[in-house]
Amino acid sequence: MDYQRILEEIADEVKPLLKNGVVANYIPELAKIQQDKFGMYLLTLDQEPYAVGDYDEKFSIQSISKVFMLAMAVGKCKEKVYRRVDVEPSGDPFNSLVQLEYEEGIPRNPFINSGALVVTDMLISNLSDPRGEFLEYVNKLTGQDDIRYNEKVAASEKLLGFKNAAMVNLMKSYGNIHNDIEEVLDLYFDFCSIEMTCHELAKAFRVFANHGKGVIDSHRYLTKSQFKRIAAIMLTCGFYDEAGEFAFRVGLPGKSGVGGGIAAILPNEYSIVVWSPGLNRKGNSLAGMKALELFTTKTTSSIF
Amino acid sequence: MDYQRILEEIADEVKPLLKNGVVANYIPELAKIQQDKFGMYLLTLDQEPYAVGDYDEKFSIQSISKVFMLAMAVGKCKEKVYRRVDVEPSGDPFNSLVQLEYEEGIPRNPFINSGALVVTDMLISNLSDPRGEFLEYVNKLTGQDDIRYNEKVAASEKLLGFKNAAMVNLMKSYGNIHNDIEEVLDLYFDFCSIEMTCHELAKAFRVFANHGKGVIDSHRYLTKSQFKRIAAIMLTCGFYDEAGEFAFRVGLPGKSGVGGGIAAILPNEYSIVVWSPGLNRKGNSLAGMKALELFTTKTTSSIF
Amino acid sequence: MDYQRILEEIADEVKPLLKNGVVANYIPELAKIQQDKFGMYLLTLDQEPYAVGDYDEKFSIQSISKVFMLAMAVGKCKEKVYRRVDVEPSGDPFNSLVQLEYEEGIPRNPFINSGALVVTDMLISNLSDPRGEFLEYVNKLTGQDDIRYNEKVAASEKLLGFKNAAMVNLMKSYGNIHNDIEEVLDLYFDFCSIEMTCHELAKAFRVFANHGKGVIDSHRYLTKSQFKRIAAIMLTCGFYDEAGEFAFRVGLPGKSGVGGGIAAILPNEYSIVVWSPGLNRKGNSLAGMKALELFTTKTTSSIF
Amino acid sequence: MDYQRILEEIADEVKPLLKNGVVANYIPELAKIQQDKFGMYLLTLDQEPYAVGDYDEKFSIQSISKVFMLAMAVGKCKEKVYRRVDVEPSGDPFNSLVQLEYEEGIPRNPFINSGALVVTDMLISNLSDPRGEFLEYVNKLTGQDDIRYNEKVAASEKLLGFKNAAMVNLMKSYGNIHNDIEEVLDLYFDFCSIEMTCHELAKAFRVFANHGKGVIDSHRYLTKSQFKRIAAIMLTCGFYDEAGEFAFRVGLPGKSGVGGGIAAILPNEYSIVVWSPGLNRKGNSLAGMKALELFTTKTTSSIF
Repeated sequence: MDYQRILEEIADEVKPLLKNGVVANYIPELAKIQQDKFGMYLLTLDQEPYAVGDYDEKFSIQSISKVFMLAMAVGKCKEKVYRRVDVEPSGDPFNSLVQLEYEEGIPRNPFINSGALVVTDMLISNLSDPRGEFLEYVNKLTGQDDIRYNEKVAASEKLLGFKNAAMVNLMKSYGNIHNDIEEVLDLYFDFCSIEMTCHELAKAFRVFANHGKGVIDSHRYLTKSQFKRIAAIMLTCGFYDEAGEFAFRVGLPGKSGVGGGIAAILPNEYSIVVWSPGLNRKGNSLAGMKALELFTTKTTSSIF
Repeated sequence: MDYQRILEEIADEVKPLLKNGVVANYIPELAKIQQDKFGMYLLTLDQEPYAVGDYDEKFSIQSISKVFMLAMAVGKCKEKVYRRVDVEPSGDPFNSLVQLEYEEGIPRNPFINSGALVVTDMLISNLSDPRGEFLEYVNKLTGQDDIRYNEKVAASEKLLGFKNAAMVNLMKSYGNIHNDIEEVLDLYFDFCSIEMTCHELAKAFRVFANHGKGVIDSHRYLTKSQFKRIAAIMLTCGFYDEAGEFAFRVGLPGKSGVGGGIAAILPNEYSIVVWSPGLNRKGNSLAGMKALELFTTKTTSSIF
Repeated sequence: MDYQRILEEIADEVKPLLKNGVVANYIPELAKIQQDKFGMYLLTLDQEPYAVGDYDEKFSIQSISKVFMLAMAVGKCKEKVYRRVDVEPSGDPFNSLVQLEYEEGIPRNPFINSGALVVTDMLISNLSDPRGEFLEYVNKLTGQDDIRYNEKVAASEKLLGFKNAAMVNLMKSYGNIHNDIEEVLDLYFDFCSIEMTCHELAKAFRVFANHGKGVIDSHRYLTKSQFKRIAAIMLTCGFYDEAGEFAFRVGLPGKSGVGGGIAAILPNEYSIVVWSPGLNRKGNSLAGMKALELFTTKTTSSIF
Repeated sequence: MDYQRILEEIADEVKPLLKNGVVANYIPELAKIQQDKFGMYLLTLDQEPYAVGDYDEKFSIQSISKVFMLAMAVGKCKEKVYRRVDVEPSGDPFNSLVQLEYEEGIPRNPFINSGALVVTDMLISNLSDPRGEFLEYVNKLTGQDDIRYNEKVAASEKLLGFKNAAMVNLMKSYGNIHNDIEEVLDLYFDFCSIEMTCHELAKAFRVFANHGKGVIDSHRYLTKSQFKRIAAIMLTCGFYDEAGEFAFRVGLPGKSGVGGGIAAILPNEYSIVVWSPGLNRKGNSLAGMKALELFTTKTTSSIF
């Protein structure tokens, strides 16, 4: 299939959408991104890369990092992870405290903020240098050594992160946070501040497309069963309150971030990453959603 | 692959579970079912059938019927269906009125009761004889002509269906029910009262596995895109508050019913139906869930 | 104290407010009321009447009738009433189903719709001719025999009463409605359709100001203790989501209705009724609230 | 009236209840209180004191302190207080975050924790030495100079105060907390840690019974209107989820604390304080509620 042509067609077709949507502006570092950026990167398991647009520009991966957090925690703690965080869709806007209170401090899934905060807490308990080791993990997944936190982004997030602080405190009141609250928050904001390009994210997610085994280093990051669970969570919970919509329109397990990135996989086939900073009402990249929909439609690939 | 042997192994392995779980007992017709029933039926697209246990015994398909309701409505009304019912997981027990009130009468998805009631309302508006035509539709999907409503089951459900009545009334107050409330309720309870065997359900669901096209009659019941959306809804919303769990453990789009049946598909490959009346805490067949998990594990088939 | 002068001053001072607020328009019978109507009637225990404006014009008492329903039910069933309906403020808009579901069919108090529906259900169970006997009760309280239901108003309410129907069904699902749903709804809408003047309501409420004993007929409608509970409920729950505001601004136990009436009492001293059809955002008479606030301020009377 | 005899009768009658209820045990300082303590103190406006039991023993006033916080804030900031905190009953258990999120950071009333935290925040903004000045205020109200915070209680509360921290953070995210979160929490826990005897609390609350004017020092702490609002809030919101019950059974504005104290007033007549550490399911003193009910019944005094 002529993937390169397809990507170029898509870039063309979504161009009119780039001015729609709203760039996240709750912190200055995200607000200043140029709205008309658009990049897309496709990496198949047999390693042929296809790319278009700003695919080599770094952006803030934000919530996409939650997939790395979960993968690392599952690698370390195995099934125990799922005793402290559920795996069901939340059915609620992504910051809601209601459900957390109703379910006595157990987050609905690891991809809402409360769930990722619990996962962060587990990493603190199980790593001697969580900040360093997490970065190392992401670098290794990607096959690089130069991926970094953006401390300025993390600091800005922290300054306004009162809802996240509310959630950690609430979960601590139910005994589901074991470490110091400030430490959990600081680390969580660092984790979300990682900057990567479409290309880099595609390399990291290709490991997931390969059922958890590195394509280049052959390292087994996850067992097949561990991967399957993470893929299921990506499919049912990866897009805030738009998971059903994404499952239908795109039909791939994936994860979006408020920086405008979306990373997705077709197991056994490919990883694909798109970046466009304008967000729709639900907080997902507007043009990014459309681009992936066009891609699975044009290639008739989807898990269904 | 030796599917027949696998089914037999599974029947053996789940036997100790059959006494666990609780048979639905809110109406006498369901309560009297023998708890240790177990049947399983696998139908691949190339028509080889494999079966084990009580696969030829009729049971009340209950909520599995919601897939047929939605398919018929989508065939009639196309995309308009999704203006009156959303496609997102509910994140709440399956009878909750809260979300319905919060979202002003728009059900979260067509597989919770409120959503299926709206779909029923649409069928009334768009068919001249909805009761007869729906039965005809299910019979045609199955390639039979003898599938029937169980009027006694429907009458019992109606007698105790106050929560469903509450939901229809609430939705009517928001303008999302267009027909007479009693008519909607009566028809809905009829739709859920259909009785089928594992074998029959497998035949009907094979049409979905074939992307909406009849395997025998070659009739196109759904376009590929219409099918894809229904499959996505089955995956994200098909198991009440256990959709994420099922997506992980089984990894197939499917739908369960309180009668103990579960129908699932692997697109392009097969339909598979299991029946065991004992339900787990979330209202899904306890042994049925396990049987399907064993099946996709043993065959390493799953959408992921 | 020169009560007559005070009422006239108040009528003057609230005149500019009469054009503010919104007349209830969900049924045609209420929508057609002239917005600038204003009446006020004060009746002290020693029987001197003071009045101003349209105090002799009939209006739809609507929710004020809930006080009569409760009083009659308490007279018949004593403390048992409070086993099926709680006595706590709802803290929620007056139609909410959420709390009802959360508290398993027990309404928060008898002055929200769900609570009044349960009270209606009790009256059906305990009276041979509830429709006739209730009217007789209200007539007797008032010392008249010509107070009537407005069947047209009741019929209009019924036609649009889906939220109330949702609530009755939900409560029936929890076993807290014992009679036929249609019968409960019909009777409830009749009860709310009663038409009275400020003068008539003041006479009826004077019985409450007199701790439940008729001033003229000396009949004991309620024991002192029964009265005290009803007064407490009026104070904490009588004004939808504005009970705290009313307790502060006016400082009297009372009850408002969507027809624009408010009836209140100062125990041992007087009953006072005001009518002005324009409602504020919370569903209480805008000018009526102000008029009562001016009255208790000018007379420095209040329960505090 | 022979108040002394009545108090002694009551002490006798509630004695069997003292072993019921549960002493608050979430912090060690409260848990170690002897359960069978019981004290009661009545102070009329003409200064005759009546007392029984352990009326001269210090206990942790806890939430009763919220009345002092509110009174001081209203004295300083006037009506502006009510722009940042509502005056309606909460209809929910006293720690709930749900309503706070639903109403975008505006607490329902100043007597739930979130409301008192906002009041604390206002005191920080408006006083140069809030910790010292608040203590001075309470001492002056009481006519003493030796009332103190219990730093050990405050420290214990702080150590476990994650739900309160969650609420402050959530309100900060909505802009309704202006000062540093730690500062607000520290001060709030200090305020709640004050220790007073029944006698001392009765002296302080007599100022409220006197409509906000000191009986001995003749200082006007609150205008009559400011007092009226606070009394209305005590009546509708002073007893967590049992305000309606208290309004009926006792019929006095008041406030309870988790230390087992209840302070109440009959405006123009008296203040009355009872202490008994065993709490009922709703968090109010079990024997204390009964004692006050007996008191208003025996003296036939109540605001109704």
